[in-house]
Amino acid sequence: MYSLTVRDHFMIAHSFRGEAFGPAQRLHGATYVVDATFRRPELDEDGLVVDIGLASAHLSAVLSDFNYRNLDDEPLFTGENTTTEFLARVIFDRLVQGIKDGHLGAVARGVTVVSVTLHESHAAWGSYEGDV
Amino acid sequence: MYSLTVRDHFMIAHSFRGEAFGPAQRLHGATYVVDATFRRPELDEDGLVVDIGLASAHLSAVLSDFNYRNLDDEPLFTGENTTTEFLARVIFDRLVQGIKDGHLGAVARGVTVVSVTLHESHAAWGSYEGDV
Amino acid sequence: MYSLTVRDHFMIAHSFRGEAFGPAQRLHGATYVVDATFRRPELDEDGLVVDIGLASAHLSAVLSDFNYRNLDDEPLFTGENTTTEFLARVIFDRLVQGIKDGHLGAVARGVTVVSVTLHESHAAWGSYEGDV
Amino acid sequence: MYSLTVRDHFMIAHSFRGEAFGPAQRLHGATYVVDATFRRPELDEDGLVVDIGLASAHLSAVLSDFNYRNLDDEPLFTGENTTTEFLARVIFDRLVQGIKDGHLGAVARGVTVVSVTLHESHAAWGSYEGDV
Amino acid sequence: MYSLTVRDHFMIAHSFRGEAFGPAQRLHGATYVVDATFRRPELDEDGLVVDIGLASAHLSAVLSDFNYRNLDDEPLFTGENTTTEFLARVIFDRLVQGIKDGHLGAVARGVTVVSVTLHESHAAWGSYEGDV
Amino acid sequence: MYSLTVRDHFMIAHSFRGEAFGPAQRLHGATYVVDATFRRPELDEDGLVVDIGLASAHLSAVLSDFNYRNLDDEPLFTGENTTTEFLARVIFDRLVQGIKDGHLGAVARGVTVVSVTLHESHAAWGSYEGDV
Repeated sequence: MYSLTVRDHFMIAHSFRGEAFGPAQRLHGATYVVDATFRRPELDEDGLVVDIGLASAHLSAVLSDFNYRNLDDEPLFTGENTTTEFLARVIFDRLVQGIKDGHLGAVARGVTVVSVTLHESHAAWGSYEGDV
Repeated sequence: MYSLTVRDHFMIAHSFRGEAFGPAQRLHGATYVVDATFRRPELDEDGLVVDIGLASAHLSAVLSDFNYRNLDDEPLFTGENTTTEFLARVIFDRLVQGIKDGHLGAVARGVTVVSVTLHESHAAWGSYEGDV
Repeated sequence: MYSLTVRDHFMIAHSFRGEAFGPAQRLHGATYVVDATFRRPELDEDGLVVDIGLASAHLSAVLSDFNYRNLDDEPLFTGENTTTEFLARVIFDRLVQGIKDGHLGAVARGVTVVSVTLHESHAAWGSYEGDV
Repeated sequence: MYSLTVRDHFMIAHSFRGEAFGPAQRLHGATYVVDATFRRPELDEDGLVVDIGLASAHLSAVLSDFNYRNLDDEPLFTGENTTTEFLARVIFDRLVQGIKDGHLGAVARGVTVVSVTLHESHAAWGSYEGDV
Repeated sequence: MYSLTVRDHFMIAHSFRGEAFGPAQRLHGATYVVDATFRRPELDEDGLVVDIGLASAHLSAVLSDFNYRNLDDEPLFTGENTTTEFLARVIFDRLVQGIKDGHLGAVARGVTVVSVTLHESHAAWGSYEGDV
Repeated sequence: MYSLTVRDHFMIAHSFRGEAFGPAQRLHGATYVVDATFRRPELDEDGLVVDIGLASAHLSAVLSDFNYRNLDDEPLFTGENTTTEFLARVIFDRLVQGIKDGHLGAVARGVTVVSVTLHESHAAWGSYEGDV
């Protein structure tokens, strides 16, 4: 299996609901450094998993919907805890949709698996991986 | 599949037996930077893979049994070469036991896979991954 | 010149005032990975720059005053833009005060320079360095 | 499943053919930081996945065939785009052959999976993973 | 002294002249991950060393003159060995000129020192630091 | 000022004497990832700070005297606490001596400052910097 990964980041405010979160129930924030990985069993005729330029541009576009925002105010997330692992899934869903909508070009239609990792610090990260 | 990873470290002395180890047959030591990853197919109702605070605390507790020790003197390891990959399995077993014993809380009972990576330098690391 | 550095992190919400900040004028947040460096011309009799345990504990205590908070609500920062470089200075001041107040132990009284770096992402960081 | 990874790097010139590559159609180059991972279900009697010294030496030998070269001039790559993911496969094939040829010693015959990741920058990497 | 650093990268081909360079006399290439650091004794009224957006954009513009190129063909470098440390100086000069030409905005006129580090691999890097 | 840095590592056992060290008074160990930096005001005629091959080889030679050893048994360190910052100075002294003895070649005679950083974990490091 081949893969290609591109990295970008976004910065948000949010808070969590539930005693398990302790002081993280207060409004705080995070920088998420995001690694988006695309996998497929064979390369395309150009020798590519995805076009790295299109993949980077689409990842940036996906993140720009959340960047510099308070996620507590986003209707999309009403009633949800926007944990690192939850957000990994949200970004996964958007990247898969982007592949299906052609935003990563024809080459990306060969991608069979996408994996998204969000680093919340030097010592903790979460991810979601699934089929396209 | 979702995952969450927490990082910590421990520092030990040890030596290896067997010609394959060359100069590492002498008493020496290592810093192991440990990444403990927990995986599960669905998040719990709080949007979590594990409680990151409990996961970090339990990883630290597991590592404290070995930290600042000479592993050659530990009865647990008599007759064993405490290689990086061997120690990854030891820590894996203890984290899985910790989940079963409830040290990571009720939420962690949904974890199906644990993976442990020990970085022995900037240029080498070993891991063990298995089902809970 | 000798130095010793310890790393920790904190997670905050904030916003900036001024057109230069563009979308960062909105409420957002950041993870700051903090490197606190202590410098001195000679080691103490134990061979230390600082006691690494006390240095780590004091850095953690300093960061806990800001961790999981919205800096826009902190009276201390009224009228200030809590930029990465500004916060580096705030933490510098507190570490220097901690040395003077004895929180890093007698050994730390030999420290002559402190440097604080805050990493806001994998691609940007700010710092402040000054004499004790 | 156990794994062991060793890291090395090589530096090459190359160019790509195809409009998808944009300015990368010009002769340029890359440093590839290479992580070679060996996996197996059980350790050998010494507690090893592979002999780390032999694994490092063989990875270095494999990379030396490409290091400090213009890949456009290598007959092996005529008609190919030497993308990051393509090169990951080339190095994978050579490591697997090395295992079969005994260059990693008898212990490495227990390896069942090899994975190779090439980091082309701090923000992009590609890989190939397959069975031995 | 305050500082702010932004990171970017570029990918080039080149060769070196002189026996000291051994196999690096052949045409090869490198990815350079570039850290551009700006220093000044006091922050501006917005709490900034430089506008991070303008600094990132200008660094990217400077690197784009070299990105995806064979430096052996650049008239600017005729008769020069484009070593890591030499290129750090070239980029330093352009960043300083950019400050003087106003490309980093009025705020950057307070910058007194610029430092540029080029990482050529995970195990080697070079830099140049000087006054503006 | 120009600089060039090369990275390597070594793995040792040791223990510390003094109550300040707490559990680190027990025999334990560390991996030290070592960054050796060479500085000089002008490049040599080849465009170099040092010959990176000679610098890497000499650093490796210096570290091999300590690698895979119990520092408590080294007569050189009798009565000393081999802390991270203390060892940074030991390696600094040997690199400076290596420059003077010609082990880094004629080009290295232009080096005016050497800096050595030892990373003992992902969260702590120490250094020594001085004139040649």
